[in-house]
Amino acid sequence: MSKTVGIIGLGLLGGSLALALKAYTDYEVVGYARRQEICDMALADKAVSKAWTNVDDVIRESDIVVFALPPETNAKFFAEKAHLFTSGQIVTDVSSAKDDFVASVYQHIPDGVIFVSTHPMAGSEKGGYEVVTKDLFQKMGWIVLDDPEASCYDAAVADELANMGQSIGSRIERVQMKDHDAFLAMVSHMPHLMASIMTVVVGGDELGEFRMRLSAGGFRDSTRTAGGLPSMWKEIIFGNRKNVLQSLELMEQEVNHVRQLLARDDDGAAIEEYLGRAKQIRERLPYLTGQVNDANLE
Amino acid sequence: MSKTVGIIGLGLLGGSLALALKAYTDYEVVGYARRQEICDMALADKAVSKAWTNVDDVIRESDIVVFALPPETNAKFFAEKAHLFTSGQIVTDVSSAKDDFVASVYQHIPDGVIFVSTHPMAGSEKGGYEVVTKDLFQKMGWIVLDDPEASCYDAAVADELANMGQSIGSRIERVQMKDHDAFLAMVSHMPHLMASIMTVVVGGDELGEFRMRLSAGGFRDSTRTAGGLPSMWKEIIFGNRKNVLQSLELMEQEVNHVRQLLARDDDGAAIEEYLGRAKQIRERLPYLTGQVNDANLE
Repeated sequence: MSKTVGIIGLGLLGGSLALALKAYTDYEVVGYARRQEICDMALADKAVSKAWTNVDDVIRESDIVVFALPPETNAKFFAEKAHLFTSGQIVTDVSSAKDDFVASVYQHIPDGVIFVSTHPMAGSEKGGYEVVTKDLFQKMGWIVLDDPEASCYDAAVADELANMGQSIGSRIERVQMKDHDAFLAMVSHMPHLMASIMTVVVGGDELGEFRMRLSAGGFRDSTRTAGGLPSMWKEIIFGNRKNVLQSLELMEQEVNHVRQLLARDDDGAAIEEYLGRAKQIRERLPYLTGQVNDANLE
Repeated sequence: MSKTVGIIGLGLLGGSLALALKAYTDYEVVGYARRQEICDMALADKAVSKAWTNVDDVIRESDIVVFALPPETNAKFFAEKAHLFTSGQIVTDVSSAKDDFVASVYQHIPDGVIFVSTHPMAGSEKGGYEVVTKDLFQKMGWIVLDDPEASCYDAAVADELANMGQSIGSRIERVQMKDHDAFLAMVSHMPHLMASIMTVVVGGDELGEFRMRLSAGGFRDSTRTAGGLPSMWKEIIFGNRKNVLQSLELMEQEVNHVRQLLARDDDGAAIEEYLGRAKQIRERLPYLTGQVNDANLE
């Protein structure tokens, strides 16, 4: 008989994971949502075979419990519900910042309960069950966080969760738990903040609206993630702020460095070299991530 | 008999403009390219009815001469060829930074020759005739630069060039010449440099490649323009460096400001408010520019 996956939180990630598991695996899927109407929508879509507005039932009926709420909320929920887990049950999560949740798990997890964290690198600036899709994970990275020192970690379960990601179309990456948040601050959380910063600098003053009328695809794409949900990204960024602050400091230093290159009276030789170096690095990205580098309009 | 438009430079912008004018207007179109093979490709596509590797012929046969080479090159060419223009002929350009070219025109333009500058806000990180498309200008902004103080400026010609942009699908914006480069530094040139800066910070060290494997659509889109042609963008950015340096300084100050907000022990209240403000500003963008704000994956 196939295992049951219980997904706590049927937003964009949790709801899409439910649809993907139904479509591409033989896992049984059940879920929790705060609002009954979301449970009803997920049931109507057959994303889940059962859904509750009560976490306890999900934990009771699942072999693998996936926490798919924002990091702080995941952490609070786990602290409250840890005692409900029984030996051999598997706990995982899909959030973008790990500090809060992992600390809560390591503090409260009962003996014999297994915890391996994952991070599917998918999402959108739009959130909620309304935008779920079974193909959200196709071709995206799916990070499995290895933490051999942790007593609740199990290598076989880590492989099982890696296979789960692969079966719904993701590219698997293995990262040491202790390194994850620093990496993610650099590739996701800081870039998200930079999009907001650029939006405020360019569009935030009295000339901002007219100025933005003169923008094109470059500004549009550079600032896209500034449309993300503030409440969710606040939890992700603030939950990882030590690393995000370091990444922002690196950006501040590099902007200053580039200002000095641009100030040189060298007919732009230093800037052209810098642009060339960045281009070389950027061109490796599609091959590293397997994503097509769409030639959107500038 | 319809007017002849001579396009100097059949790269992405010039070549696409030729195709668009052929497709959507009754202008006669001729062109210049440095290499004969590009002339042959443009002739084969019927983008132009005649093409030369010699600028003189284009100037001789055109009512409207469009400089579509990089800004510095446009400036050099105009200085060399200005004497070939005759009274009543119209000179325009389509480049992203105006200082060099406009200075050259105002210095060398013969009496009676009319100059009105335009800036179609279209392009791509890929350049060259190989990527031209007749619909490059659809739904994009087309700036007409008004400069009533200049003796070579003509309001009726400015309207004619605005109509040209509208007829190939663009949204017309009118900007005072003296304001153009400062606006463009903010909405295009600085964002382009920021994409390169973020690419170097995130992907430029020994951990860069592994780090980039963990990135998703947010980093991909934020850094897309770092794939642009260094030689071309050097001319644009260095040609506008006074304004670009000011924009970079504003970014550096704002990054520092946000670091201070994030450092507050306020459970992220200040950061959430900041993200909310940026989201509000960003959400005006698609409506302002008429561009579809694709919900690319995060």
